[in-house]
Amino acid sequence: MLGRGPSSTGGVNKVPFLAPDVAVVGAGPVGLAIAWRCAARGLRVVVHDPTPGSGASHVAAGMLAPVAEAYFGEQELTGLLTESAGRWPEFAVELTEAAGTDIGYRTEGTLVVGLTADDLAEARRLWAYQQGLGLPVTPLRPSQLREREPALAPRVRGGALAATDHQVDPRRLVPALRLAAERAGAVLVTEPVRRLSDVTAGVTVVAAGCGVAALTGLPVRPVKGQVLRLRAPDGAPPGFRHVIRGYADGEQVYLVPRHSGEVVVGATVEERSDLDVSAGAVLRLLRAAVDLLPEIAEYDLVETSAGLRPGTPDNAPMLGPLPGHPDVLVAAGHHRHGIVLTPVTADLITDLICGGGSSPPLLAPFRPERFANLPGVVAATAVGNTFQPSTEVDSWN
Amino acid sequence: MLGRGPSSTGGVNKVPFLAPDVAVVGAGPVGLAIAWRCAARGLRVVVHDPTPGSGASHVAAGMLAPVAEAYFGEQELTGLLTESAGRWPEFAVELTEAAGTDIGYRTEGTLVVGLTADDLAEARRLWAYQQGLGLPVTPLRPSQLREREPALAPRVRGGALAATDHQVDPRRLVPALRLAAERAGAVLVTEPVRRLSDVTAGVTVVAAGCGVAALTGLPVRPVKGQVLRLRAPDGAPPGFRHVIRGYADGEQVYLVPRHSGEVVVGATVEERSDLDVSAGAVLRLLRAAVDLLPEIAEYDLVETSAGLRPGTPDNAPMLGPLPGHPDVLVAAGHHRHGIVLTPVTADLITDLICGGGSSPPLLAPFRPERFANLPGVVAATAVGNTFQPSTEVDSWN
Repeated sequence: MLGRGPSSTGGVNKVPFLAPDVAVVGAGPVGLAIAWRCAARGLRVVVHDPTPGSGASHVAAGMLAPVAEAYFGEQELTGLLTESAGRWPEFAVELTEAAGTDIGYRTEGTLVVGLTADDLAEARRLWAYQQGLGLPVTPLRPSQLREREPALAPRVRGGALAATDHQVDPRRLVPALRLAAERAGAVLVTEPVRRLSDVTAGVTVVAAGCGVAALTGLPVRPVKGQVLRLRAPDGAPPGFRHVIRGYADGEQVYLVPRHSGEVVVGATVEERSDLDVSAGAVLRLLRAAVDLLPEIAEYDLVETSAGLRPGTPDNAPMLGPLPGHPDVLVAAGHHRHGIVLTPVTADLITDLICGGGSSPPLLAPFRPERFANLPGVVAATAVGNTFQPSTEVDSWN
Repeated sequence: MLGRGPSSTGGVNKVPFLAPDVAVVGAGPVGLAIAWRCAARGLRVVVHDPTPGSGASHVAAGMLAPVAEAYFGEQELTGLLTESAGRWPEFAVELTEAAGTDIGYRTEGTLVVGLTADDLAEARRLWAYQQGLGLPVTPLRPSQLREREPALAPRVRGGALAATDHQVDPRRLVPALRLAAERAGAVLVTEPVRRLSDVTAGVTVVAAGCGVAALTGLPVRPVKGQVLRLRAPDGAPPGFRHVIRGYADGEQVYLVPRHSGEVVVGATVEERSDLDVSAGAVLRLLRAAVDLLPEIAEYDLVETSAGLRPGTPDNAPMLGPLPGHPDVLVAAGHHRHGIVLTPVTADLITDLICGGGSSPPLLAPFRPERFANLPGVVAATAVGNTFQPSTEVDSWN
């Protein structure tokens, strides 16, 4: 039923007695933004999630960093990140207005720094690549670096400014998206969805993070990340304004300052699926953070947590129809980029639903069918409308 | 009313309509042990505490270490620690039987180790002092050290065994003491005590940790300690059996293994009174712990916490009558030694109450009156029975 326009009933459906036009499975930022955009176009939308906002976004730092995260061999992903980051300023304004709440969007930019000469050499190699793509990364002399952030350790050897790499607070973003979606008429249902055949709708959008594997058979794997939340002493704001991304004795770490005084320090990238916080990870993150910004040692450690990023075989998202099931759209596998990719994902999936059958060209490299020939994927998706995953799970969240 | 024998009513008083023989202010290990011992002798006992066991003991590791904690210039304290540690085996048996619960008492002993040559030199200086006092500390060759604890880092330079330094689990000890005290007839009252004149009893025992300063005017100050609780992975017990006390690049750290898989890592010693957990303290504790026992990096970090030890000007406890108030006994200021000193404190205070006016000689160096001439102490204790502290506080806990 791709190409359906606004439903004839229109308006707000608090209790959807009629089958909805769109069912979204997953109330993380991606699912809620799709629900908001679709509801705003007049579609009847139901969002299914027993615990909205409890997935990867609850742990995420909220960096919007297409430049600093432009890595070798990921040109297509970098293009999508850049496109979505470009939509963020307007998205932030619209959402703040629609929800009536602050989402912690900040535009001071990002400093990428290297602690040792070796760290700096590694960073410079990446900056050269990023500049080659035409991305705005500007190396700074040490004096320029310290002018911008006097709190940086004197031994930091050098750095660069990614002025367009911004940040948002995911723990403010998700409630705002939920408010905006509900104000636009979307209805949240907190019953767990155990299989897609439990859901009745014109189009089903699967935005269930790591749960997508069990629901669709597509190759989404959990990639564990451990994150710390600190707080500047005495209710003061942090002693730095930029997002700091650092290389410190071979460790990579980021520090994201919030006006509230919070500083998010992250993150490990681990191929495992537990949510335990390990002593070694906390040690490595704190050591790197304190080496780059010594005043961090005086901050309170207020939270240690772990989340599971939904990774795909090529670490790029899956956006588009589930192979063999044109009424099921996948919006998942955003891995480390769920927050920055929220606006473009919501726009593209909404266009796909409302666009009369045509598919936005931007989507082409990210269609789930690129994994259709992987072993195991066909087996799981070929069983028809029951969508029984090959591995049993209790529920997807 | 010192010297009062068992009350003529005897038995168990669930609701003390009669004024109790003994009111204990503070249901930490010291207060509860005194209540247990007094109730077991037939006295009517009431214990006052709005949140039993919520003070320093909740954070404490529970090392019973008179040998490893025998420091220069503290001979009298070392004598009391040794005396109390000697009472611990029987105390543990009696308490386990009286409460019917396990208190995690373990007798594998303590290894004191030095990471670097400098660390080892510092440790050896203290071992020589301890051996000079006749205390059982036995230097070990590196091969003997590794035979006892193969998990120690290969770069640990040397160590010694303090075979008689044992451990108990304070989070099991306090509930057991409460059970034993209540089974013996003591009654717990959870109303806060704002001043001692709120309490009516033949003898009042003030065992309120840091709250003693506000209640009596005696010079007890909070000494903050930050502590981590880790857990060995996969439900296994820790990979080491001894308590490990280490010097690691100038940091002192201890690691206390429990059969449950828990490992307590501590502790900072800070002259401040907040309960915040700081990034710098967590970093230093984890770094030292991982340097000494590399497998700790794989353990889960399950709790970070801070407690306030009740310190006195000479860091030794105050045991005996409050100056000018023979009916008020102080059992406080145990600083870093509250757990190990619990048996001797309970015995001595109970003897003082029941002993017909004579004072056990062991108490002599620890009487609160040694601080009576400090500025501020007289002013606070000379106001009579109102015990109004010089600094207003809402309540003592």
